[in-house]
Amino acid sequence: MKKKICILGSTGSIGQTTLQIISKNQKDFDVVLLSGNNNIKLLISQAKKFKPKYIYSNNFHFREKIKFFCKNNKIHFIDDLKLLKKAKFDITVAAISGIAGLIPTIDIIKFSKKILIANKESIICGWKFILKELKKKHCHFIPIDSEHFSIFNLIENKNINSIKNIYLTASGGPFFGKRINLKRVTPSQAVKHPNWKMGKKISVDSANLMNKVLEVIEASLIFNLPINKLKIIVHPQSLIHAIVEFKNGLSSMLYHYNDMKIPIINSLYDNFCNYKNVDKKLLSQNKLTFEEVNIKKNPSLKILKLKNVLNQNGFILISALNEILVQKFLDRKIIFTDIINKLLTILKSNLVKNYLKNHQIRHINDVFKVYNFSRSILN
Amino acid sequence: MKKKICILGSTGSIGQTTLQIISKNQKDFDVVLLSGNNNIKLLISQAKKFKPKYIYSNNFHFREKIKFFCKNNKIHFIDDLKLLKKAKFDITVAAISGIAGLIPTIDIIKFSKKILIANKESIICGWKFILKELKKKHCHFIPIDSEHFSIFNLIENKNINSIKNIYLTASGGPFFGKRINLKRVTPSQAVKHPNWKMGKKISVDSANLMNKVLEVIEASLIFNLPINKLKIIVHPQSLIHAIVEFKNGLSSMLYHYNDMKIPIINSLYDNFCNYKNVDKKLLSQNKLTFEEVNIKKNPSLKILKLKNVLNQNGFILISALNEILVQKFLDRKIIFTDIINKLLTILKSNLVKNYLKNHQIRHINDVFKVYNFSRSILN
Repeated sequence: MKKKICILGSTGSIGQTTLQIISKNQKDFDVVLLSGNNNIKLLISQAKKFKPKYIYSNNFHFREKIKFFCKNNKIHFIDDLKLLKKAKFDITVAAISGIAGLIPTIDIIKFSKKILIANKESIICGWKFILKELKKKHCHFIPIDSEHFSIFNLIENKNINSIKNIYLTASGGPFFGKRINLKRVTPSQAVKHPNWKMGKKISVDSANLMNKVLEVIEASLIFNLPINKLKIIVHPQSLIHAIVEFKNGLSSMLYHYNDMKIPIINSLYDNFCNYKNVDKKLLSQNKLTFEEVNIKKNPSLKILKLKNVLNQNGFILISALNEILVQKFLDRKIIFTDIINKLLTILKSNLVKNYLKNHQIRHINDVFKVYNFSRSILN
Repeated sequence: MKKKICILGSTGSIGQTTLQIISKNQKDFDVVLLSGNNNIKLLISQAKKFKPKYIYSNNFHFREKIKFFCKNNKIHFIDDLKLLKKAKFDITVAAISGIAGLIPTIDIIKFSKKILIANKESIICGWKFILKELKKKHCHFIPIDSEHFSIFNLIENKNINSIKNIYLTASGGPFFGKRINLKRVTPSQAVKHPNWKMGKKISVDSANLMNKVLEVIEASLIFNLPINKLKIIVHPQSLIHAIVEFKNGLSSMLYHYNDMKIPIINSLYDNFCNYKNVDKKLLSQNKLTFEEVNIKKNPSLKILKLKNVLNQNGFILISALNEILVQKFLDRKIIFTDIINKLLTILKSNLVKNYLKNHQIRHINDVFKVYNFSRSILN
C-alpha cells in the first residue's frame, strides 16, 4: 500500500528534494498534504502534479489566490493544522525553515506515524515539547539533517554510554582556506556553499560555522549527550558526515555523497531502499582530510564555551538572535562579520545573563517570548 | 564470575596479545588452557604466570620436557583435545598459525561457549566443518582478524542483502610505493610490516598482498558473500579496516588504531569494554588516503579472477600452495617473486584443473589430502 505523505515546507530545498524522490517512486507514496508560504507559484505547480488532498498555508498575501486554486481543484485549503482532525499520515516531512516551523511540527505529530524533521530551529528551541508529543502520540522520529541522520544511523542499537565522543564534520564553508576579507563578504558570496545546495539562511550559517554550532546543540538534544562530547572537525570533502568514537577503541564513520536525497530516501523507506547512483564510485575522491577547527578564524565556536547560555533558554536565544542577525545580513543591514560579533557581545551581556536567570521555558509560548526579547534587543 | 579462557596458540602473536590483555584484567578472566608448539620456553613461562589447568601441545621433541613441567606444577598435560572430556570454556581464542590450527579449532568448539578465530587457514580450508560444528554445539563465533572483525562489527544487525560491496583495506605492505627489486627481497625485509607486528608467514603474505587475497576468501566464507562483492583497496595508514558500502547510498567505515588488542579485547568482553588509549587521539593522522590496487604490481590479485579455483577445493589449494611456498621462501629455497609466480602457474595448470574436477571435500581429512597433493607438486 502507498504511504501517505505530508510535507510541511514543500517549496523549500528539503521539500523539493523529497518531492523529487516521490516523483520517481510514485508506486510507493501518495502525497496527501503540501504546504508552502512564500513561493506560491511553486506550491501550486507541485499541487497540480501531486494532487494532494490538503494544502496548508498561512501566508495572508496569497490566501485568496490559494483558496481559489484549491476550490477549483477540489483540494481542502487549511490555515491551521488542527483542522486536519482525523487525518493520518504514514510519514511527515517537517521542513519549514526557521522558528516558523516549530508550531506546525508539534501540531502535525498527532497525525503522523513517523516524522522526519529537517528543521534545526524547531529542535533547538522546542525539543522538550516535540519529544513529549512524540512519546504521547507514539510517533517515530528521524532527524534528516545529514549529520544527525548519520549519527542516528551509526548509533542504532548501541548503548549511549558506550560513546566517548561524536564528531560532526564541517566543510568549512565557502571561505575555508581562502584569503578573504570577511568584512566585505556579500550575501551572494556567503550563500554559495562549496558542497551542498541549500537555502539562504543555512548557507550563511555554514559560511561562519554557526551551522555547526547549531548542529552541536541539536545533536546534544536529540541524542541526550552533553555538549562537550560533541566535537566539530573540518572535513572539506563533505563525504564523512559523522564519526562516532566509542569508548572501546572503535570508531564508526558514515560516508555518503553530499546529496540530501540519501538521508531523505533512507528515512522515507522503513527498511531498505535502493539508492542508485550510477555516476559515483565509492572513494572516487581518494583522499579524506580532517583538520581541527580554528576557533580564532571561526569565532562562532566560542558560543559552545559560554556555559551560561548552554541551557534550554540559552539555546533558544542563540538560535533566535542568529536567525534575526542572518536576516539583517541578507537584507544588507549589517556586514557578514557582525553576525557573530553581535551575537557574542549580546550573549555575554548582563542583559542576557539577567534574562536567563529570570525566565524559564514552561510553555511553548515561552519560546516565542525569547524570540520577541531577541528582536527587542536587535531593533 | 571470571570467564574461563582457553588459548590455542598462546605463544604466537595473537596468543601473546591475548595474554597481555588478560594480565591487565585478571579480575575478569581465568586462563584454563594454554597451548604452544615450538616456543616451549615461552609456553612454560606463560604457564608459570597464568597457572592453567591444562597445557595442550603435540610437539614430539619437547613432549617429555613439558610433561615433566606439568607434573611438577599440577597441570594436566594433553596432546589431544578430545581428552578434555567435560571441560567448558567461556571463551576460546583459536590462534594457531597455518593449517595446523584446523583440527584443534574444530575439536575445541564442543568445549567452548564462544570462539574467537584468528587463524585464516582454518577458515579458508575448513569453514564448512567449522560452521557445522558451531551450529551443532551452539558456540558463538567472532572473527578477530582486524578486517573481518571490523566487517562483523559494521554489519551487525544489518541485512546481508542490503550490502553492495565490502572493501578490505590493505596497507600495501613494506614495499608499497617503493622502488625495489622484488627479486632480491630477503626474508628479513619481507617480514618487516610497516604498520603491524605479526608472525612471519602473515608478514610475507602482507608483502605480496596474498594476505588480502586470503582475507577476501575468508570474508566470502564467513559472511556468505560472493567473491566479486569483496574489494581490496590500498589504505597506507591502516586506520580504516573495512568499509561496507550499502545499496542505500550509505557506507560505514570502521576506524581503529592498528593494535590487535582492540579486536581481541572487544571480542573477549560480551557487551562493552573500555579501551584506554591515552596517547592516541582520533584522527591525529589527519589524512586518510585510498588507492586502487595495482594488479600488475601485485599479481597475487590475479588469483581472485581465476574462476576455476574459486571454490572450496580451490580455496584449500590456494592456501596450501601459498603456505608451502612462503615456507620455502623463508628457508631461502625460492626467491620472493617466485611465491606468486609459482602459485599462479600451478593454479592455471591442467594438473590442478583435473585435480579439482576429480576431488570433492566431503570429510575433514580431504582437506589434508589437498595439502598432500600441494606438497607433492612442490617437491
